[in-house]
Amino acid sequence: MQSGPPGGSGPAEPGPRLRGLRGAHPAASASSLSGAGAEAGCRAPAVAAVLPAGGSGERMGVPTPKQFCPILERPLISYTLQALERVPWIKDIVVAVTGENMEAMKRITQRYQHERVSLVESGVTRHRSIFNGLKALAEDQPNCRLSKPEVVIIHDAVRPFVEEDVLLKVVTAAKEHGAAGAIRPLVSTVISPSADGCLDHSLERASHRASEMPQAFLFDVIYEAYRQCSDYDLEFGTECLHLALKYCHIKAKLVEGSPDLWKVTYKRDLYAAESIIKERISQQICVVMDTKEDEAHVGHRLEEMLKNELNQVKVTSGRDLQQIILEQCYSFVCVNVMTSDFEETQILLNMLEERNLSILYPVVVISVHFLDYKSVPFGQKMENLMQIREFAKEVKKRNILLYGLLIYYPQDEQKLQESLRQGATIIAAIIKERNPGLIGQLLVA
Amino acid sequence: MQSGPPGGSGPAEPGPRLRGLRGAHPAASASSLSGAGAEAGCRAPAVAAVLPAGGSGERMGVPTPKQFCPILERPLISYTLQALERVPWIKDIVVAVTGENMEAMKRITQRYQHERVSLVESGVTRHRSIFNGLKALAEDQPNCRLSKPEVVIIHDAVRPFVEEDVLLKVVTAAKEHGAAGAIRPLVSTVISPSADGCLDHSLERASHRASEMPQAFLFDVIYEAYRQCSDYDLEFGTECLHLALKYCHIKAKLVEGSPDLWKVTYKRDLYAAESIIKERISQQICVVMDTKEDEAHVGHRLEEMLKNELNQVKVTSGRDLQQIILEQCYSFVCVNVMTSDFEETQILLNMLEERNLSILYPVVVISVHFLDYKSVPFGQKMENLMQIREFAKEVKKRNILLYGLLIYYPQDEQKLQESLRQGATIIAAIIKERNPGLIGQLLVA
Repeated sequence: MQSGPPGGSGPAEPGPRLRGLRGAHPAASASSLSGAGAEAGCRAPAVAAVLPAGGSGERMGVPTPKQFCPILERPLISYTLQALERVPWIKDIVVAVTGENMEAMKRITQRYQHERVSLVESGVTRHRSIFNGLKALAEDQPNCRLSKPEVVIIHDAVRPFVEEDVLLKVVTAAKEHGAAGAIRPLVSTVISPSADGCLDHSLERASHRASEMPQAFLFDVIYEAYRQCSDYDLEFGTECLHLALKYCHIKAKLVEGSPDLWKVTYKRDLYAAESIIKERISQQICVVMDTKEDEAHVGHRLEEMLKNELNQVKVTSGRDLQQIILEQCYSFVCVNVMTSDFEETQILLNMLEERNLSILYPVVVISVHFLDYKSVPFGQKMENLMQIREFAKEVKKRNILLYGLLIYYPQDEQKLQESLRQGATIIAAIIKERNPGLIGQLLVA
Repeated sequence: MQSGPPGGSGPAEPGPRLRGLRGAHPAASASSLSGAGAEAGCRAPAVAAVLPAGGSGERMGVPTPKQFCPILERPLISYTLQALERVPWIKDIVVAVTGENMEAMKRITQRYQHERVSLVESGVTRHRSIFNGLKALAEDQPNCRLSKPEVVIIHDAVRPFVEEDVLLKVVTAAKEHGAAGAIRPLVSTVISPSADGCLDHSLERASHRASEMPQAFLFDVIYEAYRQCSDYDLEFGTECLHLALKYCHIKAKLVEGSPDLWKVTYKRDLYAAESIIKERISQQICVVMDTKEDEAHVGHRLEEMLKNELNQVKVTSGRDLQQIILEQCYSFVCVNVMTSDFEETQILLNMLEERNLSILYPVVVISVHFLDYKSVPFGQKMENLMQIREFAKEVKKRNILLYGLLIYYPQDEQKLQESLRQGATIIAAIIKERNPGLIGQLLVA
């Protein structure tokens, strides 16, 4: 608990966590060293975050408030919370939601295991919601399990792609300047209309910026600003940096943000967010096979083909599966050798279920089988493999998307190459789309 | 050819086409009547458009300039040209591209049949490119097949979703006021930084707007503005409304635009554009079957199931296929009765190829077959249907994506319902994704 004046340095969050983080991120490290963190003996500040999430999302044109819109079946706000929880030095996250959405939000924090999140009731405007969040963090609240931070981050529930780098930059700058916020270049020229709806003047684009989120403040600065702030500001304002300037005379430090900071505002932004998330979780494919089996060499050839055909993707061998699951790989290709139809796949599915990997993202498993026409006819092989439909239905309940792939295995070397290449194309297509409507299907290469 | 003064009314484009348009669009009609169009005897102005497309797309973070990035394998700029060509009263479209991209752009206009497009070389800045486009439209150019319009629209190559409604509004307002441009509310607060990178002041969001495209001008106004304009403006400016104000003292009328006007700026915008386009071409599904056959009733039941399960989609019967193709339906479900494996599908494919429906968008055809276990075993049926892979490869060359769907047809009524429901789910999934990596696959419901 600290209660020093703005800019003071009360007891702070123990340093090692923040230092550990810095070591892992060279870019963040450089920026923090050039800021307040470089001062001799400076300890990392205790940091909390406030997320106003009481909005109705009217611009989206959909009935669900945009922060609760599902992306791959998980509400948008959970992605934002995940982005903040990835940062070990953010101690508490206070989310302000309407009374109406309180229960739904509780279920979200439980289901997706957001352990550092506390909920407060939102106000009727953005500023009132933020103020409620700050009040919950202030020391003067009774029965509150939260402790007052030195620095508070204010972020939007609908900016899910915020990176640790920019969070560290605004926090460091806030500690030095009292307030800081991320900015971006303007995409459009800003103009000022006259009363009759005509152009009065246009602003010079180079000398203006868009104010984005996250922003960060010394807690005492922004709390004081909200306490002094007029009802008019609480009703009609939106900009926290403006309040710090107006009521505490703090000129916020402006920090260049990346394009990732964009705000999910319209329906098209939900589409974009879904594509970005799908792309991110499809960056790595793990190929799993039992290498003790003689016939497994064709699995290695498939792995090589995947490496050659999928330029953007990291293809890894599943030799140390436990390690790969820890690395949060969400796409698996499981090669079943010819004699035992689903043995490998079942071992993998059991392991994935045990590790709860699919809580946050749908995990794709492609069960690969080879067809040697000489030993078994195509139709019979297909019939044997149809049980994949039942497996798929079962594991879908745990957010695992299972698909089958039967690869033709001819003697002719050139034809085999062609089969493997087509197999790689199908694997890439399935992993990229993660289409739940096609689970349990047996595709043929 | 007309050469009247700004605001004058020289010989104009014949009225009926514009009037025809108004009749079809009540919203546009209302707006044009409240504007200049309502004056007695006022004729529709001759309208051309200029598209600067010389940009390098550096914000996108990809090597291809964003206007040439492919969406469903077609360059973005072609979608924008299509949006303008849908408007019958836009007579000419002048696109300014770099010398380097001139040949590629010629191929684009040929391949996608953009017949009203002329190309000019772009300048090194946006303003210089627009000026080059205007010069090509001015009467004083030798050997020019273009004629000078009364009103010129300036639009961006990377705003593909512009609607006729807003184009009519800016043209009508430009005819009355000399200049007009679309505006949108600001998504972020705009701030002005001080020299040391801190907040100087924030602008009141309610009294500012983002200036978007399209804009429209009396040709003589904007051409004069460009002729008088300083080198500094040509180098560093971006806002045409500003030039009209500064050099011709014309205060542009501001027109509220829809969110659709957004500019494809970042990679995420390409994702969003692709999703929007996919959604649009998946709004209508046409179910084709030979209703003379006895067994065809199961096709009708599938059609009913599709209507029930897909709320957002219009499901139509393919009784008058010619008419449906004219209505630009891009998704077909073709029901093949049990005795003749691909007859219906082949008739449909031939018709689609003849009508060239797939020039602009990939057309999905799902060839549906029913499996009656009593008459033929599953494995054998699958083998019979595998020839779909060859068909699919063949028609892919003409941008038709062919997939197979085998629906289990049990005697048990409840099980049949379940099969049909699963069939509908698979059909919806295929049509939504239009994944070329899965063509020729035989899915099973």
